[in-house]
Amino acid sequence: MKTYLVAGLVAFGVVTQTLAQGAPPNVVNYQATINNVKYLFASVPPVARLKPGDILDTNTLDCFGNAIQKPGDTLSMIKGDNPLTGPFYIEGAEPGDTLAVKILDLQVDGDQGIGALAPGFGAINPTSYTPMLAPAPPEKIWFYPIDHATNTATFQALDSKFSVKIPLRPFFGCIGVAPAGSEARGSIVPAEFGGNMDSPEASVGNTVYFPVNVPGALLYLGDGHAAMGDGEIAGTAVEVPLRGRVQVSVIKGQKINWPRFENDDAIMTVGAYRPLDDCLRIAYTELVSWIHQDYGLSELDTYELLSEVGRVHLNEMVDPNYVVVASIQKKYLPEKKK
Amino acid sequence: MKTYLVAGLVAFGVVTQTLAQGAPPNVVNYQATINNVKYLFASVPPVARLKPGDILDTNTLDCFGNAIQKPGDTLSMIKGDNPLTGPFYIEGAEPGDTLAVKILDLQVDGDQGIGALAPGFGAINPTSYTPMLAPAPPEKIWFYPIDHATNTATFQALDSKFSVKIPLRPFFGCIGVAPAGSEARGSIVPAEFGGNMDSPEASVGNTVYFPVNVPGALLYLGDGHAAMGDGEIAGTAVEVPLRGRVQVSVIKGQKINWPRFENDDAIMTVGAYRPLDDCLRIAYTELVSWIHQDYGLSELDTYELLSEVGRVHLNEMVDPNYVVVASIQKKYLPEKKK
Amino acid sequence: MKTYLVAGLVAFGVVTQTLAQGAPPNVVNYQATINNVKYLFASVPPVARLKPGDILDTNTLDCFGNAIQKPGDTLSMIKGDNPLTGPFYIEGAEPGDTLAVKILDLQVDGDQGIGALAPGFGAINPTSYTPMLAPAPPEKIWFYPIDHATNTATFQALDSKFSVKIPLRPFFGCIGVAPAGSEARGSIVPAEFGGNMDSPEASVGNTVYFPVNVPGALLYLGDGHAAMGDGEIAGTAVEVPLRGRVQVSVIKGQKINWPRFENDDAIMTVGAYRPLDDCLRIAYTELVSWIHQDYGLSELDTYELLSEVGRVHLNEMVDPNYVVVASIQKKYLPEKKK
Amino acid sequence: MKTYLVAGLVAFGVVTQTLAQGAPPNVVNYQATINNVKYLFASVPPVARLKPGDILDTNTLDCFGNAIQKPGDTLSMIKGDNPLTGPFYIEGAEPGDTLAVKILDLQVDGDQGIGALAPGFGAINPTSYTPMLAPAPPEKIWFYPIDHATNTATFQALDSKFSVKIPLRPFFGCIGVAPAGSEARGSIVPAEFGGNMDSPEASVGNTVYFPVNVPGALLYLGDGHAAMGDGEIAGTAVEVPLRGRVQVSVIKGQKINWPRFENDDAIMTVGAYRPLDDCLRIAYTELVSWIHQDYGLSELDTYELLSEVGRVHLNEMVDPNYVVVASIQKKYLPEKKK
Repeated sequence: MKTYLVAGLVAFGVVTQTLAQGAPPNVVNYQATINNVKYLFASVPPVARLKPGDILDTNTLDCFGNAIQKPGDTLSMIKGDNPLTGPFYIEGAEPGDTLAVKILDLQVDGDQGIGALAPGFGAINPTSYTPMLAPAPPEKIWFYPIDHATNTATFQALDSKFSVKIPLRPFFGCIGVAPAGSEARGSIVPAEFGGNMDSPEASVGNTVYFPVNVPGALLYLGDGHAAMGDGEIAGTAVEVPLRGRVQVSVIKGQKINWPRFENDDAIMTVGAYRPLDDCLRIAYTELVSWIHQDYGLSELDTYELLSEVGRVHLNEMVDPNYVVVASIQKKYLPEKKK
Repeated sequence: MKTYLVAGLVAFGVVTQTLAQGAPPNVVNYQATINNVKYLFASVPPVARLKPGDILDTNTLDCFGNAIQKPGDTLSMIKGDNPLTGPFYIEGAEPGDTLAVKILDLQVDGDQGIGALAPGFGAINPTSYTPMLAPAPPEKIWFYPIDHATNTATFQALDSKFSVKIPLRPFFGCIGVAPAGSEARGSIVPAEFGGNMDSPEASVGNTVYFPVNVPGALLYLGDGHAAMGDGEIAGTAVEVPLRGRVQVSVIKGQKINWPRFENDDAIMTVGAYRPLDDCLRIAYTELVSWIHQDYGLSELDTYELLSEVGRVHLNEMVDPNYVVVASIQKKYLPEKKK
Repeated sequence: MKTYLVAGLVAFGVVTQTLAQGAPPNVVNYQATINNVKYLFASVPPVARLKPGDILDTNTLDCFGNAIQKPGDTLSMIKGDNPLTGPFYIEGAEPGDTLAVKILDLQVDGDQGIGALAPGFGAINPTSYTPMLAPAPPEKIWFYPIDHATNTATFQALDSKFSVKIPLRPFFGCIGVAPAGSEARGSIVPAEFGGNMDSPEASVGNTVYFPVNVPGALLYLGDGHAAMGDGEIAGTAVEVPLRGRVQVSVIKGQKINWPRFENDDAIMTVGAYRPLDDCLRIAYTELVSWIHQDYGLSELDTYELLSEVGRVHLNEMVDPNYVVVASIQKKYLPEKKK
Repeated sequence: MKTYLVAGLVAFGVVTQTLAQGAPPNVVNYQATINNVKYLFASVPPVARLKPGDILDTNTLDCFGNAIQKPGDTLSMIKGDNPLTGPFYIEGAEPGDTLAVKILDLQVDGDQGIGALAPGFGAINPTSYTPMLAPAPPEKIWFYPIDHATNTATFQALDSKFSVKIPLRPFFGCIGVAPAGSEARGSIVPAEFGGNMDSPEASVGNTVYFPVNVPGALLYLGDGHAAMGDGEIAGTAVEVPLRGRVQVSVIKGQKINWPRFENDDAIMTVGAYRPLDDCLRIAYTELVSWIHQDYGLSELDTYELLSEVGRVHLNEMVDPNYVVVASIQKKYLPEKKK
């Protein structure tokens, strides 16, 4: 028996779980259907339990619960937005720890994607939280045929014959854990617990970190996107069901306030609130803290360095909270502190 | 005599100026010094006149007027922020036209860059317009040696021995024209007339378009940046003097409301106001209009397409107004209307 | 048996519950203690049941659970913020109805009030959701002796000998119902369900309306304020336990989206979100709708009229969401439609 | 000869000008017409010169230059928004001083007021700076007959027969000085120099203070409002020409950053920027500074006191910048420091 880092995990802290040397990770399979999905990030009984190091092989329904299938179908046919697969209980995860979820594989689980204009959503039309004395755009649905051979979705204009292929870059629009303080939040909400972050960073090769708020953390997945523009401005991406494989681990005794992403090249922080100005402040202050604590640069040196090489990715400006990811490439950082 | 497009100009409208066939563009040279710079975007007598198609070969001082040269120098030695080279009068440009400025070449005009924390600036500290009952960070200055051979600037931490090389990607932090309505705006302001946009898009290979508000448009250049992080969060980039070559042209009778960028691959719109939420709304509604008008997609099809492939680049969140650039790659667009 | 309006209730809709003619309203007494309070607006078993027309006579603990009693006590002694009395199940209230709560009496239930600077709160210091690279102000606690004879609280400066009397105007900082969509929200959150609105409008003589999201509505009360400045900028009011009497009724089949207030003189709407710009848009669009639907003015006439006589009361800018109340005096309105 | 305070002036600093004892103030008369108004707050030759203590008796055109007179008139008939009377040069006012303007009298200078919905303006419709993919409301004009006997304006609905009287409370929508840094700002802009603040506080009995940015300060007046709702949400108030009398004085060597108001009962600070969150931060931090410096309370005691008795008045959310006034009644303050 030997302690080692979960293979390939790029962690900002000390991963303390032990795995049997040489043993392949255990794989837990779970099949989501419209009958077992959830519509809240909350503390409810888990659908399965994982041990640190385990791989979860599962699927997610699209944000409409796969209810929109053909022209003529309408949003009124949807049972609920963003049905969630889970929750999954991760053994050993306790409040004050950090949950790490490495995304190993993601595949579009179907042959078409859906885009829709829905009342109350959208970055540049009147919405529920930015209401105006002006008519909302009409409900509209676009169908995107998926070509698995070329790994593309095809945009087809509704008002003309124009069409164009878009490369697939699938990610989980929803990935998160049970919120703190016993809150239960709808599956369209992004916040400190992750949730509906609509972060393209939630894709293969990246690890996402969450604060653990309840025993077992309670991981949820959903809202697959095959491709998405920055801001997700019309309110939806190319919405698809997904099949995915993720590997979970727990960083004991390491507390974070907001979700983080990491891969071999970069560290990334999430700011998920309103307005965008505050998202940016959250993401960048979190990034300063991370660099200061783990890489040893002073706070003001970090501030200056980020002013020259920091990157910002606007994820979405349409959900109840907006989401921004700030990042820095590791090549610009000192060696990480032990 | 024959009418043709200015060589290499990628324009969203019809360029109507005529140039002598085969003649090389006229080059106008102008040397900026601390004694002839301006500190306002305003209607004042021009320093030189250009004809459409002319190339301007000039230089800009850094945002401190080149006053900070060595450790121990302080911001109190600065005569004014963002000294501007210009204005340049472009023959034939009338209110209601669009000025196109293609950036042909940019070189860092010196051997070091400067970064600084200055009172009242910064995205994640109290500022003049987001004041707090909390102390501002102290004034600090970082010096970045420039290595022209490797095309890098070197960040050197003040509080540790860490240093790291940053690739140079020079651009004009200030590029703009005289404002509408006879306004005169300080050289730290970005708005409809361009100005202190701090857009890395103002770099070689890109054309920037401005609304013409006064006869001759009155082009100003300044505030060279050798490199900059998204948001320019500490309030400065790697600040440098520049040498640059730009080619001007005029699109007659084509009115735009906000600056735009274009290159062979993409069209880009600017939203320059406060808060970021409104910057995004400006940039994306402008992009919808541009695509709808010039490429013929319906507004709602455009909205949906941008929700899948639109890109957002946060330029800065530290000036009196913030700046966001929204863009789409041309490969996703229909053929441009004639 | 006869149908009539609940005595004194000023309702925007049709109150349909029937009460025995001439019978005095039933009074339900309930005593809150630190052992039976809640910390969430959520669907949990009620502590008591009320019929429409019933009067609830109860008490609330202060926002600190009455834990801060004397100099030297610290915020670390608090079990949870904003302990809530309730929930109370109102018979006959179904999703899609409106709950009306008329506030009949409010008395400060003690001899002192508390004000505190707490980490992460405050309109003009760095906070959890507007973080800055700047130190937060230190924890500080102010004690306000209450003089029931003169109906005043006394502010006593900590850093000088200055003191001044402030008139008492008690109100419920927390008043709300179970949220929609099975959400559970912490007791510091204001939103569509009401909650921690910190609205001085929640005081004697006013009726507050809530959307009913679950059977029985589930009314919660708490966070008594003896007095509060607009914005509640340091993060607390003069925090006190309260004794209060409220009368509940149900408006069947009338759906509202956000809380509303009403008294003999005015109608008032709540916008509770972020940033303030959106709070204002919510409150004023709701007010336009209310006037248009119930008083028959066209939407644009209403818009113009509000531009001349509308009133805005900033309630608070310190909670996770901010709260604004927009209002119009009834004397400026047409006669209400039957 | 004796030094004394200008009669009735309530100043936050030391008024140092001397006036001949017992002599009545000098009155300067100036008549504004459409031919001598200005459309910028800027440094231009003054139309008249005043000495400290002088009274200015003048008039202002309405925000449409008095061009809208009868049904059928349209906004296209307007020469420019907010024509300004002035500028007036105040002798002895130098950069770094404060200009005090006491408003002695204001009368509606005509028999009707105008309200209008104009493209690009409005708090709850799409605008130039909060653009949406949604149609703007149509241009509409409301006429308000003024009854000088009852001191009321009458709102008359366009879409029904409803009308209602509104009490007149006239104020200058525009009052300001030449901006700092040689900027010239359009007459619809409120900012540090005052300008189009649309502050009902700019009314009889109040003194308004401005930072002096240029020799003579250069005072401008305009945009009379007979009545206005909080937020001025449709983009206009009851717009009227005014006749007014103001008395000017200069507080030497006292520098302020933003406009302030004062009367016998209260001190008030202005935050004029975007978004409202930042307006509030500006106004309240200015108020904390004022109280701390002039009344001697510590900053944190002031913060706490304002959290209990501070008042916020949203002036407008429709101009290029928004305006909030924060205030405290003097009865809650210590005695002013000498």
